[in-house]
Amino acid sequence: MTATPAMEHPAWLPPAAFEAVGRQTIEIDVPRSLGDSPVLASLRREIEVATREYGGAASPGPAGADRRDQSTTLRFEFDDSLRVPGSYTLASTPAITIVAAGDANGLLYGWFAVVRVGESAFGENRPAQTFIPATGTRMLDHWYNVDVHPVLGQVERGYSGGALWFEAGHLRDELSRVGRYARLLASVGINHVCVNNVNVHPTETTLLTTRLDWVVRLADIFRAWGIATHVAVNFESPVALGGLTTSDPCDAGVRAWWAETTRRVYDAIPDFGGYVVKADSEGQPGPFAYGRSHADGANCLAAALAPFGGTVHWRAFVYNHRQDWRDRHTDRARAAYDHFTPLDGQFADNVMLQVKFGPLDFQVREPLSPLLAAMPRTRVGIELQVTQEYTGQQRHIYYLPEQWHEVLDWRPWAGDDTIADIATGSARAGEVPSRPGLDAGIIGVSNAGADEFWTGHPLAQANLYGFGRLAWDPSLRPAAILDEWSSLTFPGADPLVPRTLRSVMLGSRQIYEDYTAPLGVCFMVTPGVHYGPSVDGYEYSPWGTYHFADRDGIGVDRTRATGSGYTGQYHRPWTDIYESLAGCPDELLLFFHHVPYDHVLRGGKTVVQHVYDTHFAGVAAVERMRANWRGLAGLVDAALFARVDELLDEQVRCAGEWRDQLTTYFWRHSGIPDAQGRPLY
Amino acid sequence: MTATPAMEHPAWLPPAAFEAVGRQTIEIDVPRSLGDSPVLASLRREIEVATREYGGAASPGPAGADRRDQSTTLRFEFDDSLRVPGSYTLASTPAITIVAAGDANGLLYGWFAVVRVGESAFGENRPAQTFIPATGTRMLDHWYNVDVHPVLGQVERGYSGGALWFEAGHLRDELSRVGRYARLLASVGINHVCVNNVNVHPTETTLLTTRLDWVVRLADIFRAWGIATHVAVNFESPVALGGLTTSDPCDAGVRAWWAETTRRVYDAIPDFGGYVVKADSEGQPGPFAYGRSHADGANCLAAALAPFGGTVHWRAFVYNHRQDWRDRHTDRARAAYDHFTPLDGQFADNVMLQVKFGPLDFQVREPLSPLLAAMPRTRVGIELQVTQEYTGQQRHIYYLPEQWHEVLDWRPWAGDDTIADIATGSARAGEVPSRPGLDAGIIGVSNAGADEFWTGHPLAQANLYGFGRLAWDPSLRPAAILDEWSSLTFPGADPLVPRTLRSVMLGSRQIYEDYTAPLGVCFMVTPGVHYGPSVDGYEYSPWGTYHFADRDGIGVDRTRATGSGYTGQYHRPWTDIYESLAGCPDELLLFFHHVPYDHVLRGGKTVVQHVYDTHFAGVAAVERMRANWRGLAGLVDAALFARVDELLDEQVRCAGEWRDQLTTYFWRHSGIPDAQGRPLY
Repeated sequence: MTATPAMEHPAWLPPAAFEAVGRQTIEIDVPRSLGDSPVLASLRREIEVATREYGGAASPGPAGADRRDQSTTLRFEFDDSLRVPGSYTLASTPAITIVAAGDANGLLYGWFAVVRVGESAFGENRPAQTFIPATGTRMLDHWYNVDVHPVLGQVERGYSGGALWFEAGHLRDELSRVGRYARLLASVGINHVCVNNVNVHPTETTLLTTRLDWVVRLADIFRAWGIATHVAVNFESPVALGGLTTSDPCDAGVRAWWAETTRRVYDAIPDFGGYVVKADSEGQPGPFAYGRSHADGANCLAAALAPFGGTVHWRAFVYNHRQDWRDRHTDRARAAYDHFTPLDGQFADNVMLQVKFGPLDFQVREPLSPLLAAMPRTRVGIELQVTQEYTGQQRHIYYLPEQWHEVLDWRPWAGDDTIADIATGSARAGEVPSRPGLDAGIIGVSNAGADEFWTGHPLAQANLYGFGRLAWDPSLRPAAILDEWSSLTFPGADPLVPRTLRSVMLGSRQIYEDYTAPLGVCFMVTPGVHYGPSVDGYEYSPWGTYHFADRDGIGVDRTRATGSGYTGQYHRPWTDIYESLAGCPDELLLFFHHVPYDHVLRGGKTVVQHVYDTHFAGVAAVERMRANWRGLAGLVDAALFARVDELLDEQVRCAGEWRDQLTTYFWRHSGIPDAQGRPLY
Repeated sequence: MTATPAMEHPAWLPPAAFEAVGRQTIEIDVPRSLGDSPVLASLRREIEVATREYGGAASPGPAGADRRDQSTTLRFEFDDSLRVPGSYTLASTPAITIVAAGDANGLLYGWFAVVRVGESAFGENRPAQTFIPATGTRMLDHWYNVDVHPVLGQVERGYSGGALWFEAGHLRDELSRVGRYARLLASVGINHVCVNNVNVHPTETTLLTTRLDWVVRLADIFRAWGIATHVAVNFESPVALGGLTTSDPCDAGVRAWWAETTRRVYDAIPDFGGYVVKADSEGQPGPFAYGRSHADGANCLAAALAPFGGTVHWRAFVYNHRQDWRDRHTDRARAAYDHFTPLDGQFADNVMLQVKFGPLDFQVREPLSPLLAAMPRTRVGIELQVTQEYTGQQRHIYYLPEQWHEVLDWRPWAGDDTIADIATGSARAGEVPSRPGLDAGIIGVSNAGADEFWTGHPLAQANLYGFGRLAWDPSLRPAAILDEWSSLTFPGADPLVPRTLRSVMLGSRQIYEDYTAPLGVCFMVTPGVHYGPSVDGYEYSPWGTYHFADRDGIGVDRTRATGSGYTGQYHRPWTDIYESLAGCPDELLLFFHHVPYDHVLRGGKTVVQHVYDTHFAGVAAVERMRANWRGLAGLVDAALFARVDELLDEQVRCAGEWRDQLTTYFWRHSGIPDAQGRPLY
């Protein structure tokens, strides 16, 4: 491992996590052609450091092995039958453990797999098992600004200190931490990063040209860990950078400008990943200005990237953010589907449509985006948010793999195909099969920053870890991921540590939902910052985010019969389930229906009593969380303990504020008292 | 007049306003002792420029007068019977007009009085009339920051571009505009300014010591126009600047530090005005930290200033801004009275307690602060807000003299004494007479900035003008002030101009009230920025600003019988009038009482129908304002016309937003439809 400065937490790769593997005699047996790979160089350094620390031995190959008594052999082998990039096979006998792969990334992933398995990877018979990533695009976007934005700061929606590589208008001079970050990402299988915010401001626009040397430096670092570098670009770059009079994607001059600019990028970064684009959204420019479609826009950039194997990540987050709250016909939830489904089949092969998991914006609870299952002839990547914009901003414990597991496991058709199948390009449901041979992807918005613990809240490291693991294998269970993470992060800890982490983190998503916005009602957050309650904060806003509460009831009618018709964007059975007041799942009731406060839920309670009960229960659960955590005093690193402890005080305070404001709001509107007589204001 | 750069509007002193006076032969006959006065030098320059422009003559004294045929004589004379500083006498015969005063300021004020009178000041018989300022403290505070504050900017609550003298961390190099500003202020009688924000941040704290040279430069400029300069100080200066371990106002070392620091200020600025202090308020430090009273705090600074004749302006805006919205016992409106009345009689002679006109914070409609009439043994200054924080932010037309006239004319006792009598130190009502011989004051928060039109909205110049005129003479009527201002600002204009200005500006306060928060309910504004509606924006906040709306009713019960008891802070008859649901004036009903939506007002309508009617009427009135203004196209300066025109569009838009959000909120809560069936959402 790379040395970790005293002030930086090692996350899930502390030295002790390498103890078992570090005791072995380790050989690498690969073709000469692979020997030049910077990834293999990283692997060799990993082996060197671990064996030096724990008394094993690194050996150039099987011939010169310096076998020691207490060790078995760990051998890395080339196996060209493993064709999927990054895949690897793990097998062992009492004498030898073998990691085989068809590329350097696979060998590196195998190394970290052995670290995860730990002691039991050695000296036992283990039949060969091959691990194949579910998707070739396991990507983290970084909403890092170069300049500090006057409102949103250095990192848009960042809650972990500054950016890891930009600072106050510049690339940081000292980038060694970026290497350590890349290593953390590689250890969980991440193989793509985008280095700047999707909202591309003027300075960031120039990353494509005059500041390309910064991207080169970052790409050099990420390359050593098998990670391709992407840049978020400004759709108006031909005008802004090229001095053209138009950025019309169908203009020959514009297309030539993109082609030439992209060629220069590849001259500097031969393995450059491609572009990320937020177009015609929340003030960003896009093809609509020229009367062109988003397929025209995406394909223009795709054509420039195609000769070099690059990809355009084109975000589907397109909606009218200047909506009139008086207008009940326009429904923001409909927007992405309405915009993009007519374009299915028109996108180039190297365009990936990047779709947020829900139709709104990373809420605690929304239905799955119907667009995900409506683009059979398009590569669709799913976008998840690792940074906790609406989910507690790394001040609240919210174990995101619980939500992602639900997301990935959801079945948009009557058959067995899941969202994970779509995001990995293997869905076969619906009338048209997925586009054959075209991989899809799982993309997250990183929660990492310059904070000592990387993620602000130390336990939010598990979200970063879990994102990588789920992107590799969406079938993994949240609890299993948590145990993996906690055994790596707290190696050799008292058994109370993993037990407490389970008690504190599993179920944390439900608890957060309990004390915040209920029953699928969205956006009851403080406008702008999105932290803490403001029940009516978005009710009269232009952002298209309403709940329409009055003295009689609350919720958004999105039915075909009487509402916005959004339910019609779903396949059967969901289109009917959501349409039906009786059939709609309780947790999404107010997303789909406007109901009276005394409407009785499937669970048997009235809406308003459900609000009272979940909010009081949610805060009580956070108080138990805090008490449980306090049982770990002395059993984990003191600084980490203190940080979590302090944040739990804030979580208890903030949860209480949510409870009191929400219950009071429902009480004042409905006039229906709490059946249990608890305090309302 | 000083030359005005092309890009800067001359406000109410355009060259043409000096035409009548500029045609005269002007003499100054004053004692040699006055001849050194920088104010007199300013007056001489005024005379020189005006006579050069319009063909009159400036003459050193009666002997050497170079009389011209077409002119009468305007003579400035010394009259030591006029003892009140700044007062002057005006008299004329067909041959001569005489301005007599006992000091240079009086002569200068007389000059501008002659300008205001214009043509008819000359060649007519006019019996001598003496003009005496109602108060010696006619002051403007400037909430200017040195550093640009990350949230509040260069000017806290400033809507007129940047500050006139600070810019991005520094004093501006070019200060000639400050001189032109000082001249505008002098022309309406302002004689004190505070140069920095009452919220004193670290950089601003050093204006007292290491950055004192900046204050010296500003004081030099203001001095030439008879204006004393004040500085807002940080109560913790002894610690922050002096390196002391305490700022306890009763500590001998602290008192010595203030004495010595103040002596150095007076060494540099012999006519320095004194300090302005916001203590123990909204996060500012204060004496409470040391277990001391606000009298202890104020008197400590007063002792340092007394040897030099300086004054402490001690703000009474002290309240708990970390209130719990769940707590209905604490009432922010009570706070200033509760804090300060026990201290009456304890303040030093050179302390002026600076009291906002209302108990909350410059709302469109609040009752008058009961503290104003509850400190008979204290010098009380009234604080008004010229900058339109809650009154449209210089994007809406809101002619503030209409509100100030109401304020100053209000009678807090059963007798004839008014708020103006208190603010000018002449009130005799109540059981205890006002402290004899101690002047009080009228203080405004300036609306001027670096904007081309000084005040953002060109018509907001009338508020700055009107503030000065009312501070000099609180008995002036808003309509008369408006006519004065418009004849100076638009000299020789088509008669449609003053007529239109009357139609647009008179009544504008009522119109603004109609489309914003109704019936004395306060703070339905967007939190933080305070512009535009957010009905529940402060309802769950720590700022102590609630309306307690629920499905049954709205308003704050501040009665003695069942509420916070705030009504008990008033004298008779108000204490009973406000207490009584039947007697309370409609426009303050929701400030004092919580009532059902169908409560019938004294005016005969229900609360909810009143809300509907006033909001629809208010927006219609703004549309008429705009139409009337448009009749002036071609009759006033094109840039000014365009600016007002554009802002009226914004006012119409914003008023519509207020109407729709407020009426919808009341409709959704009450369920009572509009009797006229207008659209609610």
